[in-house]
Formats: sequence, C-alpha cells, structure tokens
Amino acid sequence: MKTDTYVEKEKGLIMAGKREKTREMIIDFSYALFAMKGFKQVTMKDICEVTGMSRGGLYSHFSGTDKLFEAVLERTMGNSAMDFHTEIEKGASAIEILDRALKLMEDEMKHPEDSLSVAIYEYAEMVDSDLIEKLNQNAEKKWKNLITYGMKRGEFCNINVDEIVNVILYSYQGARLWSSIIPMKPKAFHSIANHIKRQLKGEDYDNT
Amino acid sequence: MKTDTYVEKEKGLIMAGKREKTREMIIDFSYALFAMKGFKQVTMKDICEVTGMSRGGLYSHFSGTDKLFEAVLERTMGNSAMDFHTEIEKGASAIEILDRALKLMEDEMKHPEDSLSVAIYEYAEMVDSDLIEKLNQNAEKKWKNLITYGMKRGEFCNINVDEIVNVILYSYQGARLWSSIIPMKPKAFHSIANHIKRQLKGEDYDNT
Repeated sequence: MKTDTYVEKEKGLIMAGKREKTREMIIDFSYALFAMKGFKQVTMKDICEVTGMSRGGLYSHFSGTDKLFEAVLERTMGNSAMDFHTEIEKGASAIEILDRALKLMEDEMKHPEDSLSVAIYEYAEMVDSDLIEKLNQNAEKKWKNLITYGMKRGEFCNINVDEIVNVILYSYQGARLWSSIIPMKPKAFHSIANHIKRQLKGEDYDNT
Repeated sequence: MKTDTYVEKEKGLIMAGKREKTREMIIDFSYALFAMKGFKQVTMKDICEVTGMSRGGLYSHFSGTDKLFEAVLERTMGNSAMDFHTEIEKGASAIEILDRALKLMEDEMKHPEDSLSVAIYEYAEMVDSDLIEKLNQNAEKKWKNLITYGMKRGEFCNINVDEIVNVILYSYQGARLWSSIIPMKPKAFHSIANHIKRQLKGEDYDNT
C-alpha cells in the first residue's frame, strides 16, 4: 500500500508539473497572438489551433480569453528585470535598477509588434474588471518605492516623487501605444529615457 | 440680364454658406459619435440618424466615415488655443502660450469622454493613410517652434528641445488614452503639466 501511495504521489507530481508546463506553453502562444491581433479578435479556437490542443484540454486550463489574457498580463508584469522589490531588498544600487528598467522599456518601445497595449485597451473596454487599474497601481507603487529608495541612498536628487512617476508611466504608455500606429524613431524613445535619467540623477541638460 | 446674374451669384453664395454650415454641423455631430464609440463602430447610417440627414445628402459631403473622421481630426488639430504660430507671429509671450496650451491639455485629459484617442487608434489600424503621422509631425514642429521661440526670448531655459517635445507629446498621449480605460486622478494630469512647466521655466522642484 505504501508503495502504491508513493507511486500515486509521484504520478501526481509529474502530472502537476506537466500541467504547469502546458499552462506556461498556452500563455506563451497566447501572448504572441494577443500582441499580434489585440484582445477582441482572439478566440479560444485560435488558441486551440496554435497550441494544437483540444477544446476540452484548453478549457480545463482557462475558461475564456479573458482569463487567459489576465494570466498573460500577470506574467508580463512579473517580469524579472522590472522586479524592483527583490533588488531593493538585496540592497542593489538604485541607479543600476533604474538603468536596467529604462533599458528594458526602451527595448520594448522599439518592438511594437510585441506590445500588448492594444490588447490591454480592448480588454479594458470589453471586460468589466479592475485588473488594469490594479496593475497600474502596482506599477505606480513600484516606481515610487524605487525613487524613494534612491533618494534615501543619495543616488537620486530630491525630486517630487508623484510627479516623476506620472511622467515615467504616461510617457512610456504614450510612446508604446503611439509606436504601434505610426513609425517612431528609436531616438524618440531614447530621449524620453534620457530625460527620466537626467531628472533622477540631476545631471545638466546637454543640447545635443 | 445683369440683375439675373447678380441674383444667381447671391443665390450661389447663400447656397455655399448653407452648404458650409451643414458640413460643420455634420462634423460637430460626428465628433461626438467618434469620441463615444471609437472609429470602427460608427457607420454612415449612424451619422444620418444623429444629423437627420438623408443618405444622399450626407454622401454629397463625405464619401465615408474615413473622410468624415479626417475632417473631424483636421478641425480638432486647428483648435485656436493651440495655434502657436499665430501667437508667435504676434510676438506673444512664450510663457503665456505655454500656460494656455497646458491648461487646455489638462482640461482635455479630465474629459476622457470627449477624447478621440480610441477613434484615432482604430482609424490608424483600419485606414491606410499617413494622416496620423502627418498630424504627429505637425504637433512636433509646432512645439519645437514654441520652445525655440521661448528660448530665444529668454523666457525658457536652454534645454534639449527634441527631448522635452517627446516628453510633452507622449506623456500627454499616454495620459489621454489611459484615462479612458481606468479612472485617473486630476492630480496626475496636473503633475505632468507642472513637470513640463518647471522644465521650461527652470524653477526648482517643490516636494509637495
């Protein structure tokens, strides 16, 4: 009996691992689809097609594209390069955290084809949920923490935290969305990142 | 014969004036519809309904919702409070022009229900046109001119023009679009406007 239980348990663990992997695979494929087509135009049938899964198999993981999109968003927001909290806990340099985050945002802005902006927009329009608001609040909180941390360490200038966080979040959102409808020069993104750095590090403007 | 020609001419002028007024009326109603429903969901039939016009009457002015939306956009962009060129020609104060423009943008951001952001987005996705790009270039040029003008007059600090213009345009776009999907505090808009003013006027940060 003991062996049986053990085998059963092991089987269970393998199954759970497999199930988790399948879930991740669905999220990967869905990310690509949502980035390409937005939210409205993606159906559960599309997801079945790209993943090669049966309808039943897919539905055992996600009850609809709304839940699926929420999983995609939650994973995107948990992106490790943007995990300020862990870095701050480790006592990392605020400037290094900032540089890495801005670099990531700049790279993202150069790839509108990977952007979920349109999908986020359509999702917010169609689904009655406060998820986007929550994600926005999280982003706000995260940035506020980083800037306060950098100021405490004397790495950042003593600036108005709420103001710079709004400038960071909205200029990023604007550039990200705008770049998916018109061709934008990488220089434009770079100059926004530079502006933010200069505000925080307090360097002089250069007129280049 | 002379009288006849005169009468005909006058009739023609009255007709032209009437036609122009009808066109303006169509644009007014359409603006409201596009702001409310976006671009995709507005049909020529909807426009007929709100204006009370016949299909033939409407089509004699606009061949489709794309042309109609372009007329709405062109009129919006020509908004007098944002007409920097005329003000600069008149030798007006750069700070006054800036304050008026930021005030207008801040007011707009508080009224997401009047925003054409979603419609612009949907239009750009559906219609193959470089209108949005052109409008963006115009906005860029307009702001660059104002800032250069203010710098020449010694009203603005000597700052990187391209950089601040990108920050102005994209933070505005981001806040405008974002505010139509999640509730945003007026304070957030105000802080962005303050940031821009402080950059240009060179005042110290206040940590309020």
